[in-house]
Amino acid sequence: MNYTSIFETIHHEIQPFAHLGQQATYIPALARVNPNQFGICLHTLEGETVALGDADVRFSIQSISKVFSLAMALHFEGENLWTRMGREPSGTTFNSLVQLEYEHGIPRNPLINAGALVTADVLLAHMDNPEEYFLEFLRTLAGTQEVCYNPEVAESEQSCGYMNAAIANLLKHYGNIRGDIDRVLHLYFMMCAVEMNCRELAQAFLPFANHQQPFGYAGITLTTSQIKRMNAIMQTCGFYDEAGEFSYLVGLPGKSGVGGGIAAICPSRYAIAVWSPRLNAKGNSILGMKALELFTTLTAESIF
Amino acid sequence: MNYTSIFETIHHEIQPFAHLGQQATYIPALARVNPNQFGICLHTLEGETVALGDADVRFSIQSISKVFSLAMALHFEGENLWTRMGREPSGTTFNSLVQLEYEHGIPRNPLINAGALVTADVLLAHMDNPEEYFLEFLRTLAGTQEVCYNPEVAESEQSCGYMNAAIANLLKHYGNIRGDIDRVLHLYFMMCAVEMNCRELAQAFLPFANHQQPFGYAGITLTTSQIKRMNAIMQTCGFYDEAGEFSYLVGLPGKSGVGGGIAAICPSRYAIAVWSPRLNAKGNSILGMKALELFTTLTAESIF
Amino acid sequence: MNYTSIFETIHHEIQPFAHLGQQATYIPALARVNPNQFGICLHTLEGETVALGDADVRFSIQSISKVFSLAMALHFEGENLWTRMGREPSGTTFNSLVQLEYEHGIPRNPLINAGALVTADVLLAHMDNPEEYFLEFLRTLAGTQEVCYNPEVAESEQSCGYMNAAIANLLKHYGNIRGDIDRVLHLYFMMCAVEMNCRELAQAFLPFANHQQPFGYAGITLTTSQIKRMNAIMQTCGFYDEAGEFSYLVGLPGKSGVGGGIAAICPSRYAIAVWSPRLNAKGNSILGMKALELFTTLTAESIF
Amino acid sequence: MNYTSIFETIHHEIQPFAHLGQQATYIPALARVNPNQFGICLHTLEGETVALGDADVRFSIQSISKVFSLAMALHFEGENLWTRMGREPSGTTFNSLVQLEYEHGIPRNPLINAGALVTADVLLAHMDNPEEYFLEFLRTLAGTQEVCYNPEVAESEQSCGYMNAAIANLLKHYGNIRGDIDRVLHLYFMMCAVEMNCRELAQAFLPFANHQQPFGYAGITLTTSQIKRMNAIMQTCGFYDEAGEFSYLVGLPGKSGVGGGIAAICPSRYAIAVWSPRLNAKGNSILGMKALELFTTLTAESIF
Repeated sequence: MNYTSIFETIHHEIQPFAHLGQQATYIPALARVNPNQFGICLHTLEGETVALGDADVRFSIQSISKVFSLAMALHFEGENLWTRMGREPSGTTFNSLVQLEYEHGIPRNPLINAGALVTADVLLAHMDNPEEYFLEFLRTLAGTQEVCYNPEVAESEQSCGYMNAAIANLLKHYGNIRGDIDRVLHLYFMMCAVEMNCRELAQAFLPFANHQQPFGYAGITLTTSQIKRMNAIMQTCGFYDEAGEFSYLVGLPGKSGVGGGIAAICPSRYAIAVWSPRLNAKGNSILGMKALELFTTLTAESIF
Repeated sequence: MNYTSIFETIHHEIQPFAHLGQQATYIPALARVNPNQFGICLHTLEGETVALGDADVRFSIQSISKVFSLAMALHFEGENLWTRMGREPSGTTFNSLVQLEYEHGIPRNPLINAGALVTADVLLAHMDNPEEYFLEFLRTLAGTQEVCYNPEVAESEQSCGYMNAAIANLLKHYGNIRGDIDRVLHLYFMMCAVEMNCRELAQAFLPFANHQQPFGYAGITLTTSQIKRMNAIMQTCGFYDEAGEFSYLVGLPGKSGVGGGIAAICPSRYAIAVWSPRLNAKGNSILGMKALELFTTLTAESIF
Repeated sequence: MNYTSIFETIHHEIQPFAHLGQQATYIPALARVNPNQFGICLHTLEGETVALGDADVRFSIQSISKVFSLAMALHFEGENLWTRMGREPSGTTFNSLVQLEYEHGIPRNPLINAGALVTADVLLAHMDNPEEYFLEFLRTLAGTQEVCYNPEVAESEQSCGYMNAAIANLLKHYGNIRGDIDRVLHLYFMMCAVEMNCRELAQAFLPFANHQQPFGYAGITLTTSQIKRMNAIMQTCGFYDEAGEFSYLVGLPGKSGVGGGIAAICPSRYAIAVWSPRLNAKGNSILGMKALELFTTLTAESIF
Repeated sequence: MNYTSIFETIHHEIQPFAHLGQQATYIPALARVNPNQFGICLHTLEGETVALGDADVRFSIQSISKVFSLAMALHFEGENLWTRMGREPSGTTFNSLVQLEYEHGIPRNPLINAGALVTADVLLAHMDNPEEYFLEFLRTLAGTQEVCYNPEVAESEQSCGYMNAAIANLLKHYGNIRGDIDRVLHLYFMMCAVEMNCRELAQAFLPFANHQQPFGYAGITLTTSQIKRMNAIMQTCGFYDEAGEFSYLVGLPGKSGVGGGIAAICPSRYAIAVWSPRLNAKGNSILGMKALELFTTLTAESIF
């Protein structure tokens, strides 16, 4: 079975689940999105591209941005980064302050909000204009100048982002944010507000599947070992409190966002991105999870 | 044995403990205080006043202010206040975000920081200038116009108060702060920065011992039942994670602050204030605790 | 208003609440009890006794027994007891293993299950037949040989007491139970299964109100200071997760049990026992709480 | 570089770490083991076998047994198993009761003690003599009748296993153990007490690397999908609180035990077992972790 027909099978089989769940509504820009969209795109290392549905509609990548900011922070800090955060799965819901207080301001991993806020603080220490550089990095990865962020989304998030402000203040209390809290929050919300479509997102993840190639985009370089280790972190920490579930059902390193997007890779094989706004109770796209589960089942191509 | 000789006995017996512990040093104004001071003052309902040591030196009342702001909030809100906070002991350290997240933004009681921040939000909703009114209330209670707050302390606390800012943002996240966070924090830190001496503090607590008298100071009125209930809250919640210990060793309703002050009352008998800056690991004055333990042992006047 | 008419007023005013809540049903013997019973009895230090309702019907005292076992343990161990448990309110539900694991096997206080299991272990180390001695102590306190325990209740509790067995094993893991776990559980469940009526229970609590008198019953002696400190512990820890509430509404040291009983004292004044099987969500008797709240409001005799 | 020389390089490079850490000492049989042993064995799907050091010395497999009991439970229950436990990483230390109480008796995953106790309860419901069947399953997997369990170890563990008894009682309290607690504990401790050497352990893990082959050993059958999902669980949950770390540094699905053993697989490639008794603070073999990290670095054969 080729990828195109696999995509068609998936599209058919997910229909019974198409009206389950709800999109994120905590800010107007996300609440306005038509929830009945579904897009998927695959890029293989051999150069094949297969897309289906709303694969060219841009959406808010939200927490998927944490993978890109982590790549930048690893470039700048190397293994030193791990003095400021762990790389263990969180075992609790994604905003939890409990763990952070219990472990004295050291976030469990870079893919939860607390870890991404520390990552943002790291980027601020290394760049004059990290917002601009972040966009340039993503544009280079995605191979298009059209990747932008949505200022309305960034502002809405900041204006109601009391939980993230609480986390940032707690991190500052423990000395694990060194810069200005408002500056850190601004960068963080800007990165979450980047908009990409499935085609661009899969393209931007392809280098993580291709660890034999030197990673170098917009001046951000990573070794083979660093790429593999980023994949390991995505595998164990990329899906909030559902990392084990995703690993069990799908079996690929990846990252999800509350905008309904999921990006994942199969080492030495392909990158895949899927998007559908309706979320389950854990904040992950229902159709996205389902589609990827079917994809690795039908192709028998997972890391396990 | 009369109170004067009891105070002398206490002063003698606490000497072996006089150099234990350290004063609060998280802001310069507190770190500068001479830690080797000790003052104590008793006012009885019969009108007797006994003081010893540094009873006329003003100090930062800090969390003792939470009793006064609670009195004001009870005046304005009555039993409605308890829809926004509980009245159970916290069972955890005084700044803990864990409980707050676990119980969805409802602070356990009004005498922990989270509860006092909600109380400040309540006061802001009822007054145009709560800072001024708070001072007037304290001046009326203490019977002197000299009670002021220290703006340097308030500003220092605000500039490094990341934990309180984290708590305030978390409360806002859960909808339990209705006003502006910065405004709430400003009032909160101002109230903590009030300076009083033992003589004034004991005077200001005397009405809580005198529940047969109508409570009415600067327009703030409380019923007998409300006074008794405030005493109950002080008894179970007034000493952070050491409320049981204070109850066990001293047996009086009271409240401590990290400035080293403790104020307590014996219903129908007296109010007592003690101050000494060196703190134990729980943030309570070592000599203050010891002195009150000796006082209720020597007088056999506790609530039990 | 005299006590008799106060009791009548109380009885009248609690009627609207008479059918709220449910009795404990986790064992058949408790589930069989007629839930619509209500008894109350007061003994004053002056020798007055007032009773109303089902004050002569015996019921399972359950956790009220923890007060008596604590008295015995304090007699044998004195202040050493506090190396094995704290005296702080628990701040969590009464069976919680969380706190115990977090604090490495040191129960927060002697009036939660974990603390009472350690207390039972202490008694086992000091006596050959603690079950018999415990009954003798209670009979001497209550002034009647008729106090017994219900073996069916004790056996039922033991056969389904997995949570208590879990706690006992955890305590053993941390080295805070020294004897045999089964022996400790047997004594613990036997003590919970003692049956008394309100008249006997109030009589048995009267010595705790009378701290000027030497406490000596069946060879168990306590100093004035020890009695006062037991009262302090009842005040802060006697009502599970509702200690603050009871303190706020009633204002007396006391202890409740899931059998629906509550015993409380007012120092230098009286002891009071009330019983009604229907419980609130926290495991305390609804009518019992209400009756005591009304009693201290009508008499204005609380410790605050 | 061939595997033999890779093993030699590893052996050389781990020497600086050879005296770090301590072996488990909580039971005499483990405390008696010579801690300075190190063995490693690789079996590839192509049929190559490479071993070095103490690869033929049997040791207590301890928690590695949880993989085998999970395989049996999945055979008997299929996806139903997940109504009684989750498959998310635990995020806390491996014995924690906290999570179990918080999530009402549903263990986070089958590879922590709580999950393995429920698994043992499942096996008891399906077999008359699960102890015997478990051994037969392992002997068939390892290809030798010499695999046995050490009764002294099993008995020692049971006699001091208060934490596991606490967990079992808590599970029973929540209804998630259906059989007799003592029977469950007996089976659990017996499985932990099995002894294998690296050669046998790698052999027994090889089928998990070989998911294209039908899995059928001693009547226990698993589908390709089930094998892959077991690998996913090992990946996210196999190393207690260090699953992320192992994933990051090594990048293979695997399982460790406090006896100092680690078994891991690379899908479609190989199974590897390593053993050295000295443990780090998280309870994982220091040399074992180090050796596997070097192995996947030198071979560049990890799942990422």
